[in-house]
Amino acid sequence: MVRIALGQFNAVVGDLVGNADKMRNICAEAARSDVDMVVFPELAVCGYHPEDLLLKKDFLEDNRLTLDRLAADCPDTSLIVGFAESYQGNTYNSAAVLQAGQISKIYRKSFGSDVPVRRRVDGFAEPEPVVINLKGINIAITICFDIWNVEWLKSAFGGLKSAGLPLPPLLSSDRKPQGQVEAASQIQMLINISASPFSVGKIKERERILSRCAKEFNCAVAYCNLVGGQDELVFDGRSMFADSNGKIVAKARAFDEDLIIADVIPLTDGTVQVKPLQAPVPQPTGPLDEIYQALVLGTRDYARKNQFKKVLLGLSGGIDSSVTAAIAVAALGAENVIGITMPSKFNSPETIADADRLAKNLGIEFLTIPIEPVLRQFNDALKTVPDWTSKGIAYENLQARIRGCILMSLSNQLGCLVLTTGNKSETAVGYATLYGDTAGGFAVIKDVPKTLIYKLAEHINKISERQIIPQDVITRAPSAELKPGQKDTDSLPDYDLLDKILKGYVEEDKSPQQLIELGLPADVVHNVIRMVDRNEYKRRLSPPGIKITPKAFGKDWRLPITNRYSSKDSSLL
Amino acid sequence: MVRIALGQFNAVVGDLVGNADKMRNICAEAARSDVDMVVFPELAVCGYHPEDLLLKKDFLEDNRLTLDRLAADCPDTSLIVGFAESYQGNTYNSAAVLQAGQISKIYRKSFGSDVPVRRRVDGFAEPEPVVINLKGINIAITICFDIWNVEWLKSAFGGLKSAGLPLPPLLSSDRKPQGQVEAASQIQMLINISASPFSVGKIKERERILSRCAKEFNCAVAYCNLVGGQDELVFDGRSMFADSNGKIVAKARAFDEDLIIADVIPLTDGTVQVKPLQAPVPQPTGPLDEIYQALVLGTRDYARKNQFKKVLLGLSGGIDSSVTAAIAVAALGAENVIGITMPSKFNSPETIADADRLAKNLGIEFLTIPIEPVLRQFNDALKTVPDWTSKGIAYENLQARIRGCILMSLSNQLGCLVLTTGNKSETAVGYATLYGDTAGGFAVIKDVPKTLIYKLAEHINKISERQIIPQDVITRAPSAELKPGQKDTDSLPDYDLLDKILKGYVEEDKSPQQLIELGLPADVVHNVIRMVDRNEYKRRLSPPGIKITPKAFGKDWRLPITNRYSSKDSSLL
Repeated sequence: MVRIALGQFNAVVGDLVGNADKMRNICAEAARSDVDMVVFPELAVCGYHPEDLLLKKDFLEDNRLTLDRLAADCPDTSLIVGFAESYQGNTYNSAAVLQAGQISKIYRKSFGSDVPVRRRVDGFAEPEPVVINLKGINIAITICFDIWNVEWLKSAFGGLKSAGLPLPPLLSSDRKPQGQVEAASQIQMLINISASPFSVGKIKERERILSRCAKEFNCAVAYCNLVGGQDELVFDGRSMFADSNGKIVAKARAFDEDLIIADVIPLTDGTVQVKPLQAPVPQPTGPLDEIYQALVLGTRDYARKNQFKKVLLGLSGGIDSSVTAAIAVAALGAENVIGITMPSKFNSPETIADADRLAKNLGIEFLTIPIEPVLRQFNDALKTVPDWTSKGIAYENLQARIRGCILMSLSNQLGCLVLTTGNKSETAVGYATLYGDTAGGFAVIKDVPKTLIYKLAEHINKISERQIIPQDVITRAPSAELKPGQKDTDSLPDYDLLDKILKGYVEEDKSPQQLIELGLPADVVHNVIRMVDRNEYKRRLSPPGIKITPKAFGKDWRLPITNRYSSKDSSLL
Repeated sequence: MVRIALGQFNAVVGDLVGNADKMRNICAEAARSDVDMVVFPELAVCGYHPEDLLLKKDFLEDNRLTLDRLAADCPDTSLIVGFAESYQGNTYNSAAVLQAGQISKIYRKSFGSDVPVRRRVDGFAEPEPVVINLKGINIAITICFDIWNVEWLKSAFGGLKSAGLPLPPLLSSDRKPQGQVEAASQIQMLINISASPFSVGKIKERERILSRCAKEFNCAVAYCNLVGGQDELVFDGRSMFADSNGKIVAKARAFDEDLIIADVIPLTDGTVQVKPLQAPVPQPTGPLDEIYQALVLGTRDYARKNQFKKVLLGLSGGIDSSVTAAIAVAALGAENVIGITMPSKFNSPETIADADRLAKNLGIEFLTIPIEPVLRQFNDALKTVPDWTSKGIAYENLQARIRGCILMSLSNQLGCLVLTTGNKSETAVGYATLYGDTAGGFAVIKDVPKTLIYKLAEHINKISERQIIPQDVITRAPSAELKPGQKDTDSLPDYDLLDKILKGYVEEDKSPQQLIELGLPADVVHNVIRMVDRNEYKRRLSPPGIKITPKAFGKDWRLPITNRYSSKDSSLL
C-alpha cells in the first residue's frame, strides 16, 4: 500500500523561498498522517507561469538550488515537485522526484496545450516517459497537458500493460527504476501535476480526461492542481483521485489550499484500489458560484501578492461597481475597501443614494468627491481651444477622466490598488473612456458579460442572505450618466442580444455570416463586430482582469491594433 | 536568362483588397521592364503579422480568394506571393507560385525564429521543400527564417548539388516541377520572402545570412523583405540580390517601397550570374540615421494605417518631447502636428520659451493651456480626503494626469492621435506617471534610451542643416518640473550609467552579478533592477511604441506583473 497526499497550495510566481517553505510545512503536516509521497502542482517551486523569468540564468539556478534544499529538508517522504529546469542548454517544465534527501529522477513535460495562454512555455522535451516504483507500485509521472494526449500516453505506457511484453526503453538503461519494477507488468498509478486555469465548467472536462486515463490504463490517477490567482488567471485547485474504473473518489477544495490523502492498495490482479482518508469537502454549488469564487480569489491574490492591503473603487450606484465592491469585500474584508462616489450634475439622486446604501450594506468606508467644480475649471481651460465644445463625446469622456484622476491620485496617496469596474460587454465594444473609467490597476469583472453581472448580483444577495446590492440597482436601466437622460441602449443593443453576438464572435470565433444564420439581426451583428474590431487599442491599454470564460480579453486574445480586416469584405464579393 | 523583380511594398494588415491592388500595380510596372517573375514579401496578401486573425475561417478563405484573383489578373508574369493558408485543417504561412493565371505551387514555411515576436506564427509545416524551374533555372523557395537554418537547407537542397545524385523526394511524385528540372543538377537560385522587423544593425546579420546561403549552394539569392510600420514593428525593406559568391549586388531602398530588378544568367558550369538593372540607391548613413528613419516610418504608418490625419503631443521644452515632435513632423508634415504646452508654477520660463521656439522651428500649431487653475481646483476637491497632501508624489503625478486629460480631451474633440514622449530609460524604471504622461495612443521613442535621444536630437539638427531643436534643450539638465528645483538625477542615476545597466539587464538578460563584475556599482545596479522589476504593471498599461533595439518593451518582453523574483535572492544564499 502507498499513501499519497496531494499538496494543493497557492504558489507565488518568483517567490522561490516562500513556495518551498509552504511545501516544507505541507510535508510536515502530511508526515503526521504517515504519508509515503506528497505530490505538488506544476512549477510549484517558481509558481505558474514565470514567462520570461525563464530567460534568466539565475532564475533557473535558483530553481534548482531551492529544489535541492527542499529535498534535503524532507528526506523521509517521497515528493513530486514541479520546477523550471535548465537541462542540456534548454529550459524545461519539469517534475522532480525527491527521495532520501535528493533528486532521484526528473520527468520533462512533453506536450503543450494549444490554448494561447500556454504558448510561451518553452522547450518541450522529446517525450521520455518516467516511471518510478514505490513500495511495489508502478507510478508514471506526467505534467498537465500530457494526459490530454492519449496517443502519447499509450505509446509511453501502454507497452507495459500486458505481462510478458518486453519492457519499453524507459525501463531499461539509465532510466531503470530501483526495486521490483521489472517484475511488474503495468502502470498502477498515473500522477499528473498541473496548473490548469479556471474557466467556467472546465472542471467537467478535467474529470472526463482523468476518467479516460484511468480506464485506458486500468490504473489509479492522482491529479494535483495549482490554486491561486496570478495576474489574469485563477487556478481553481480541485485536485483529484480517480480509481481504476475512472470514478473520481476524492476531490480537494475549490479556490483554496487543501491537502487530500488516499491509500493506493495493490490488488491480486495487479491493479489497485484507491481509498480516500477524508470525507468529501463542499464544492461550488454551480457555475455562478464557481465564477463568484474565482473573482473573489483572483482579486484577493492580485492585491495581496502585489503587496496591496487596501483597494479603492468608484461607486456609481450602478450594477457593475456594486458587484465589484461586493467581490472586493469578500476578497479583502470590508475594512480594506474604500468606495468613492464622484457625482456630477448628470448623476441622479437615486443612483447617488444607491451608492451610499451599498457602501453601508457592505460596511465600507465611503467618500464623496463631487467633480462639478473641477469639470467646470477643465472646461474653461479647454474653451481656449477654438474647436472645444461641452456638448459632445469629449466632454462626456472628460467626466470619466476626471474620476480616473481622482482615483489614481488617492491610490498614490493612500497606497491603495484601484479596481476598475468595466464588464466584458463594454470592454468588447469599447463602451468605456480610455484613461477614464478604464484607469486603475485591476479589472475585476473584465471577463464577465453584462447579463451575467445581473445574475452575480442576485447570487451575492442570495449567499449573503440579505439585499446587499439594492434591488433598484438590479432593476434600473443601465446608464453611464455622462449627459442628461443617457441610457446604454442609446449606443448599444440590448445586452441580451449584445452578449449573444459577443459570445459567438469573441469566444467561439464565429463569423458574422454564421451569427446571422443563427437568427441574429444582420445590421446589429455587423455593427457590434465593427465596434469590437475598432476598439482593440482601448482593450490593449486597459488593466488585466480575471479570466472566467474560455476566451478572455488578455493572453487568450491577440489581435493587431492596426488591422483593416472586416469579415467577408464586400469588395471581395 | 530570367529577369526577376523584388516588389518591396508596404502592406497593411487585414487590407487584403488594398494589398492585392498594390501587387497588381507593381506587376504592371514590372511588366514594362519585361520581367519574368515578381517576388513579394512574406504574408503579402494579408500583411504581417495577422496574429489571431488566423483563427478566423473567413480570413483564411479571403486570403485564398484574393490570391486566386491576383493570379487571374496577372497571367503573363510568374509571381511569388506570401499568404495565410488553411490546409488540411492547419494554418500555414505559405508562399504561392502564381503562373499562367493560377496557383501552380505552394511552399509552406518550415522554421520559425525563436525571437519572441514571432512565437505566435501558427502551424509550421513538416519541411517539404519546393523547387520550380523557370526558363531552365532551378529556383528554390523559402520563407524568412528558413534560411537561417543551414542544416535544413542542406538537407532540403544539398542533395541536388552534384549531378548524378538521385533526386530527392521533392522532385518526384506530385511535387515534380514542369520542364527540364530533372536534367538540372543543382539549385541555381534561392528565393526568400521575408518580413524581418528592424532593429539597429540587423541589416548586417541579414547580409551575412544571405551570403552564407549563396556560398553554400553556389547560387544566386533573391531576398524580398516587407517595408512599413505595423504597431510596434517597423519592417525596413532593403530587399537584396546576392550573387553566387555571396556578394550583395543590389539593395532596395530602406524604409520605403521599391522595385528592384536583376537578370539571372545561366553560365556554362551550371551556376548563374546576377546582373542588376538599376544603379544603387542611397542607404542610411549609419545607425543613427537608421533609427531616425525607423521612427519616422513607424510613426507615419501607425497614424495613417489607423486613419489619423493629425497628431498632437505635449511640449514641455524638454529633449524627449522635442525629438518626438521633430519625428512627427518628418512623418506627417508640420501641418498635421499640434504641440501643446501645459505649464504649471513649476515650469521655468526657459523651458516654456524653448517649447515655443521648437514649435516655431518646426512650423507647427502651438497651443498653451496652463494647468494651474485646474490643479488648484483638483487639490481643493482632494483636500476633503483627510490624508491628502499637496507635497508628495500624488500631487506631482496629479499634474501629469491633468495634462493627460487635456491631451486625451483634445484627441477626442479634434480626432487627433496623442503621441506620448517617454523614452526607454524612464519606461524601464517607471519614471513616469501612469495615466499621466503615459496617456496617449502611440509612444514614439519608447524603445530609445535617453542617451540616444540626445544623439538623435543632434542628428535631427544636422540633417535639417539648422538648429531645429534648441541648443538649450540639448544641454539643460533633464527635469520633470513637477516640484521646485526637481532634477531627474534626484531619483535616478546619471543616464550614462542607467543606460549601461538597462542595456545589460533588459536587452542582454544579464544578471546583477554579471553587471557588477563588469565594473558597474553594485548598489546602483540593484536599485535600478528593483525599479525595472517593480514597474511591469506600468509598462503593461502604456501605449505601444516603435521597436528599434533587439529587445523592446512590447512583444519581446513578457514578464508577469505579479512576480516576487529578485535575482540571487539573499535568503537563498
